[in-house]
This record gives sequence, structure tokens and C-alpha cells, in this order.
Amino acid sequence: MKDINQRWITTVSLPLPTILDNTADADRLISKLKKQLNTNQIDIDLFLLKKLPDLIRFCKYNIHCILFKNYDRWILTDISDPDDPSTIAGIAVDLGTTRVVIRMINLVTGQSLSETSFDNPQISVGPDILTRIHFASTDQGLKELNHLIISKLNREISTICHSCNLKPENIYLMSIAGNTTMTHLFMGIKPHYIIREPYIPVTNAPDTMEAQKLGIHINPSGRVFVFPNIGSYFGGDLISGILFSKIYERDETAILVDVGTNAEVVIGNKNWLIACAGAAGPALESGVTKMGMMAGPGVIDKVKIDPITRAIHIHTIGDTPPIGICGSGLIDFAAQLFLSGMMDIRGKLNPSVAGSHIKKTVHGLAFTLVPGKESATNQDLIIHQTDLDSLSRSKAAMYTILETISASVGIHLKELSTFYVAGTFGSFIDPKSAISIGMLPDLPIERYIVLGNSSLEGASMLLSDRNAMEEISRIKDRVTYMELNVNQDFMNRFSAAGFFPHTDPSLFPSVKIHSME
Amino acid sequence: MKDINQRWITTVSLPLPTILDNTADADRLISKLKKQLNTNQIDIDLFLLKKLPDLIRFCKYNIHCILFKNYDRWILTDISDPDDPSTIAGIAVDLGTTRVVIRMINLVTGQSLSETSFDNPQISVGPDILTRIHFASTDQGLKELNHLIISKLNREISTICHSCNLKPENIYLMSIAGNTTMTHLFMGIKPHYIIREPYIPVTNAPDTMEAQKLGIHINPSGRVFVFPNIGSYFGGDLISGILFSKIYERDETAILVDVGTNAEVVIGNKNWLIACAGAAGPALESGVTKMGMMAGPGVIDKVKIDPITRAIHIHTIGDTPPIGICGSGLIDFAAQLFLSGMMDIRGKLNPSVAGSHIKKTVHGLAFTLVPGKESATNQDLIIHQTDLDSLSRSKAAMYTILETISASVGIHLKELSTFYVAGTFGSFIDPKSAISIGMLPDLPIERYIVLGNSSLEGASMLLSDRNAMEEISRIKDRVTYMELNVNQDFMNRFSAAGFFPHTDPSLFPSVKIHSME
Repeated sequence: MKDINQRWITTVSLPLPTILDNTADADRLISKLKKQLNTNQIDIDLFLLKKLPDLIRFCKYNIHCILFKNYDRWILTDISDPDDPSTIAGIAVDLGTTRVVIRMINLVTGQSLSETSFDNPQISVGPDILTRIHFASTDQGLKELNHLIISKLNREISTICHSCNLKPENIYLMSIAGNTTMTHLFMGIKPHYIIREPYIPVTNAPDTMEAQKLGIHINPSGRVFVFPNIGSYFGGDLISGILFSKIYERDETAILVDVGTNAEVVIGNKNWLIACAGAAGPALESGVTKMGMMAGPGVIDKVKIDPITRAIHIHTIGDTPPIGICGSGLIDFAAQLFLSGMMDIRGKLNPSVAGSHIKKTVHGLAFTLVPGKESATNQDLIIHQTDLDSLSRSKAAMYTILETISASVGIHLKELSTFYVAGTFGSFIDPKSAISIGMLPDLPIERYIVLGNSSLEGASMLLSDRNAMEEISRIKDRVTYMELNVNQDFMNRFSAAGFFPHTDPSLFPSVKIHSME
Repeated sequence: MKDINQRWITTVSLPLPTILDNTADADRLISKLKKQLNTNQIDIDLFLLKKLPDLIRFCKYNIHCILFKNYDRWILTDISDPDDPSTIAGIAVDLGTTRVVIRMINLVTGQSLSETSFDNPQISVGPDILTRIHFASTDQGLKELNHLIISKLNREISTICHSCNLKPENIYLMSIAGNTTMTHLFMGIKPHYIIREPYIPVTNAPDTMEAQKLGIHINPSGRVFVFPNIGSYFGGDLISGILFSKIYERDETAILVDVGTNAEVVIGNKNWLIACAGAAGPALESGVTKMGMMAGPGVIDKVKIDPITRAIHIHTIGDTPPIGICGSGLIDFAAQLFLSGMMDIRGKLNPSVAGSHIKKTVHGLAFTLVPGKESATNQDLIIHQTDLDSLSRSKAAMYTILETISASVGIHLKELSTFYVAGTFGSFIDPKSAISIGMLPDLPIERYIVLGNSSLEGASMLLSDRNAMEEISRIKDRVTYMELNVNQDFMNRFSAAGFFPHTDPSLFPSVKIHSME
């Protein structure tokens, strides 16, 4: 457990007022707090002034303070009797386009109390960001999207409170990490110009807000911090991930990548941080193949092909009969296809090697991953050549983005000390497979660190460690966003990276294709 | 008219966003504003983020900003199209215990548009501060008093808006100057401990608040600034008066006095300011005599007695038949009584000189100021010896407070370069009469400056001159409050000052009693 001085809760013992020291109650409290926190600015709300005089006397001038910050400015969020046994909690939120995860944290101990996840209810309007931005063009549409997420969050907060034997009034702080569009919709702010050149969000760093103003039902004096974004395409979820990775504290240069439909990348060390983002296409998150789906029971997440017998071994989530394949499964599959020689370096299925696994369809060549008699649907699970072509473009885009950003700072990918894989989707990827298809660079496998849901972890850090706010501020100010310039150089790199693993095999020395001799 | 740079309204011209300069709308605006205002902190509300993206493009990146401050921190209150012809206004409030004055100010020109005054509706609960504080001991009582003033202000704002052809939505800023109890009740904060040793207010300097949170119906993004108080007995009305007097900018030492039931005094110059307050009793505001009343039609405000014939000449407000006497009239009357020899230096009526003017009553000697046949009530307007005794105690208290505070800083009253008389009541007093009875020091009459309603004037200044906020901050930080120590020394001074004009006539060389020879 961290030092209590890391927490947002602190107890203040005030000198008793006398005729010679008769400053006002609030002034007495704030002046002592300023000394204790070493700051010269603490906001105190009218709401607190109303309860302060009686409470401060009841507590004999020993008072519990629940603090928060708006970047460098402290906010006295609430005050309470130190003898009051009520739990003081916070909620960290990873606000994903598809999935939302919330975690309840005890603000005194810093411990996680409970966690739950649910689909982003805005999916009912559209599964992807673009559809939602278009829908939010009208005030009515924006209101609807905002209402969807706010009301769902309120319901889920109520449920998670119930499971922890708490009330929403026990929750004082909330931290929200999400991409720029999701946080705009959460705040009810128009994301219209995010996707229109020159790609302008309304805000990069909203002030810490009152939960009430957002329609969030927690304690009436509760505050909400939305992680800053660096621009339209580099959101607060990434800033949160950077915070969690501590990449900004290291001497050696490292890279952090959120692998998904958008590839968001930051490279740097304690002295500098460069970020960029680019579209990798939906193939990595399984948005293209007919069989593609999100991780869930019965979804194939791992594929192994015996290089000798070419027998296919699949693993499904929950070990139930297969119903489809997720992105990490597809990457595994493509890697195994390639390594077993059933797919060539151009990413084309090779019927002469694959034999009966491959059949011709009206949509071109297709590979039967699971025959109908073994699938949950009684239908063959089939991957088409076109699906592999999509994957090929996506993995090429990812690698090109990584190569371009590294080149821009004069660093070769192989020099990277650590490669952090951020985001929920990234945590399912087997780095070895990703290297085999040339999506991620061929670094020693121990340099890969999978961070899991780094967005949620960073948001949780902020609630359990008050110093994190300063670090967020530092990260925000230090990250330089680089617009990916899709010039001839980029296109050349992209073409080369379209091969498996690459036109230059010396970049991927560890990738060995099974030879038939 | 002051420079537009003094105003709270400013126009900002922003560089158009490009792909190389694609920071967020709010960040673009705030960063330019920071340069323009030479600050590093400007708050912007969620409410503004909602209207910003469309408005900023509609205005072609030329935008009107309505600013305000929370002491040293700027607040972007609202934004508008510079071509929008709507008036942007503010309301300055002098929040008196008895009377409330509000003034509408055009925030662009700084000009006063209209003014109105009304009785403080809390009078229905009790005319004096003490009764109201007792009534506010319960949450219900506090709510009732708060509701009385807030709802009355809302009605009066609506009326004054109507008279100016404006709507409450045109009002963005409000400044409130009042004594510590009145501002506490206005904010709905408990004044309970103000009158209990060691006399602690809840707050000395509340943050600038949202009008909505106070229940004040002006523009939804409107802000309210409540002038800080120095303590329980030195309120924001005095700080406002100090601001208006500019006593804190002068090289020479001056004094500022709010004459009333409480005598609030500040002495100082550009280097230091010392304040104190003490009870002078209600006599000065005519709260003791049966005939005493507030200024209004038919109230005697000036009295002249012919030293030879002893004929009494009265002046009433509105020149209508007399119905009673106000505080300034009583001071005039006592001065004339004394100068004509009808009252002796002990403040006792002298029947041997006054003759038929004086009669004996069951309550002791009494002076018939207006016979029944000349009064509006057909009853004699009578001043009793006991009324004069009250006045004597009050004027002695006032002079003693002045003498004590000056002595504490090693300055003799006659050295004061300027004597500012603050407050509405003060503005009715004839300094010559006040000197004659020994209530105010015997300075050359030209050193007296009557400020009128300095509380309202200071509150108005804040709305027309944005630099005033910094000055308020400076005043608040610089005033040292001195607790009046009622020791033997004070009591000796008080006894001496109970005489007319004083036991030491050399202190009042200008006061010449009419000699009968």
C-alpha cells in the first residue's frame, strides 16, 4: 500500500480559533491545507461553505478532506468527520468505442473494490466512431449519444455500488480515459470537426468538472476528470496508457503501441515523447472477415498448424465449439499459414502446399479453418484470400507507422529497449505471431511487454495516487504529435511491409519458414 | 469613457486552424486569451465547450469574450458573436441590512443604465442583524432568510431589466457588497458564529460563484462576486468603500469611516491600512428616539436654531409637513441645541436658557421640536433628554474609536489629510454639526469628503474596470484588522468624549458656543 500522502484523502488538524486568531472557518482550513499540500491555490465550493461551520466544530477542528485537482489547481471536493466509517470511493473508467470497463477504487487504501464491463450503448447508433460522429451532427443526435452513455454509466455505477455494498453518494472522484470522440460524446460536446480537415477537437484538456453538470449520479460534490487528448487521433486512453507504462520516466527509448483499427503509437523516454496515429484498417480487430468477431465464448483466439502434418489445432475462448475467429486468432492463423508454407511471402494461399484445406469459391480461394461438423454452427468456418489480403494491408500499415515514427527520430526499431503493447485488443495478441507476419518488429520476445487494459490502469492510478495528476500534465505538455505524412517514402515502406514478413527478411531474422526437405 | 482594455469584454482574433496548427478550439482560444490578458490561467466551463465549435466558425475565429475573475484567476464567462447587438450588462449590489440598492451597468461602455433601491425583505424577520442571526440558527430559518433576499433580488432584477428594455439573460456579472452577515445570508451560509466569541465568519473571501448555484436568475453562465470581508465586523461593503475612496493609493494618511450603528473605520495610506469596528449604538441612525426614523418624505433632516431668538427652523425631506427625525437631523439638532446654549457641555437640556421649548414629562425633561399644530401627525414632535443621552453615548463611542485607532498608529486625528465619510447614512451628515457635538474631529471642513453610497460605487467600479479585482485583492491582503481593546485607556477616552464637544475644548477650536452677552 502506498503512503497515505499519495492519496486524495487527507486529515487536517486546525488550531482552535481565538480572539487573536479569528480568521474565518474556510480561510483557516484552506490556509492549513495550502501548507500541507504545498500549494497556493485550493478551490472550495459554496456547497462546502454551507456545511463547514457546524462540521468543523463537531469534529473539534480535525477534519477529513477529500481532494482532487484540476491539473495544477487543487479542489477541496468534500469534507467529513474522520470518525465517519463510510467508504470513500472513486470510479475509473476505460471508455472504449466498443467496450466500457469501470473499476471501483477505495480512495483511502487505493485498492480496487470491484470491476465490471459492458458494451458501449452507443453501438445501437453505430458500431464505429465515424457513424457516431455523423449521427452527432445534429444537436438531437449529439444529445441522444450523450444520453446513451451517461444513463448507462449511471445504471452500471448503481449496480457496481450495490455489489460493493456502497451507495453512489460514496463515490467522490471519477477518471475517464477514452479516445477523443468518446470523451467528447461523454461530455456532450460536438465531435463534428474531429474528422474534417484539419481535424480539430473542441478541447484537448477539459477542466475537472462537477459530476452533476455531466448528469453523472455520484456524490453531489463529486468531480470528474477526463484524460486530455493530444489531438483528434491521439486520445486520453493513450495518455492514460503512457501514464501506466511509465515510458516517460525511462532513460532508454521505448515504444508504446495501441494495436487496433487505429494504430496509436508513442515513442520516447524521459526527455521526449513523439506520438502519431494512423489507420490500420479493421482487419486487426476482425472487422472484415465474415467469421470475424469480438473475443467471447467459442471464438477462436489461438491457432497452431503442425508444420509436418499440417494438422490444424484451434483454441476457443471457454473451450466451447468454435463459432468464429477474433483478431488475435486471425494473426495467429496467418502466422501459422505462412510458417507452414501454405501462404507465400505475398500473402497468397498456396494450393500446391495446402491441398484439401483450400477450395475455390465464387469469392476466390478460401481456407477451411474448421469443418462444419466440428463448428458450433454446423457450417464450415472459412477464411477467404480477400480476408488475408485485408490483414496484409493492416499489418503493413501498422509496421509502416512504427518504422516511420522511429525513422523520424533517427532510431531503428531494433534499438528499442522495450515495446509496450497497450489496449485490451493488444493484450490478446501473441507477439511471436505478430512478428512472424511482419506486423511488429523482430525484437527479442522479452522486450515485449503486454500492458493489458492500460487505459483503465492509468485511470485507476490517478484515483489511487494524487501525484499522477502532475504526471498527466507533464505527459500532455511533453508529447509532440506528428502528423503522419503519407508521402512517397511512406508508400515505399508500406509496399515493402505488405510482404510476409517483409521484402527485407534481414529485418526479421527470427522468422523461419518451415522448409519441406 | 475608460479604455476598452479596462472592461470585462474583449474581442479575440484567432489564427485559422491548419493541418500544421490543429490544436483544439478551446485550446486555441484560451492560448490566445492568455497572451492577450498576460495570464497563465483561464477557466472555461463545459457549457461554453458545447457552443464553442459552431460559434467560433460562424464568427470566422473573431469572438467576443465576456470575462470575469476569481481573484487572480480569469474565468471565461461566455462567448458571443461580435456582431450580436445585444447589450451585455452587469448588476452592482449594495446589500444593506436595511436598504438594498442595485445598479445596472453596461459592461461594454462601463456606463450606469439604471438604479433602484428597496427595503431588505429580511426586515420582516427582524430589523437588525442580531435578530436575523438568531433566526438563522436553524437550517429552516437560514433557508427562509436566504430565500427572502434571493427572491426579492430576482424580482427587482427582472423589473430593472424591464425598465432598461433588457432581459435577465443580458446580465452576465454581478458584484455584491454588504456586511459580513448580509453576504453570508445571501450565500445561504450560516452566520451563527459571527456574534459568538471569538466571532468567526464562515468565509472571508468566497470564490466567484455561478449565479445559478445561488439561485440568482441572470444569464445561465453568469457569475457573482461577493466582496471579501476582513472579519465578522468589517464587511465587504467597507472593502468596496475603500476601493472607491482610493485611500490605499495615497501617499498621505487618510481615514475612512462608515458612520452608523456600527462604526467601521479604516486608516492608512498606500503603505498600510489598519481597520477596526465598534458599536456606536443605534442613536446615530435614529433607532432610539420615538420620533426617530429612516430618511424619507416628511422626515426632518436639517435643523437650524437662531442663536439670538432661539427660533427653530426645520427642513424636511420633500418639504412636506414633519413626521419625525432621522439621524442626521438629530445630529444637527443636538449641535444647534448645544451651540445656542440650550444644552450644556454635559449634554443636558438647560431649562433656564431654553424656556418654553422644554417641558417636564413622566420620562423626564423633553424638548418640543415641532408643535402639534405644525406636524403632519398633529402631535408634538418631542426629543427627550434620554434620547440626547443616547446620542451622547453614540457620538462618544464614535470619537473614541477614531481616537483609539489613530493613537494605535501614532497619528493625531488633526494630522489626517482627508476624512472620508462612507455609507449612505454618512452622506446625510453635515460634518460641521458632527464636529460641533464632538462626534467627528475638528478638521478643516474641506478635508471632509462625503463618498455617498461608497459600497455601491465600489461594486460598480468592479464591473466597469477589470483592474479593480486586483485592487480588491490587494486591499484584502493589506488591511490589518485591529480588535478594539476596551481597556481602561479606552474608557477614559470614552468618558472625556461624552462631553460636548469634549472635556478638552482645545481639540475643537472651531466650535464656538453662542455667548449670551
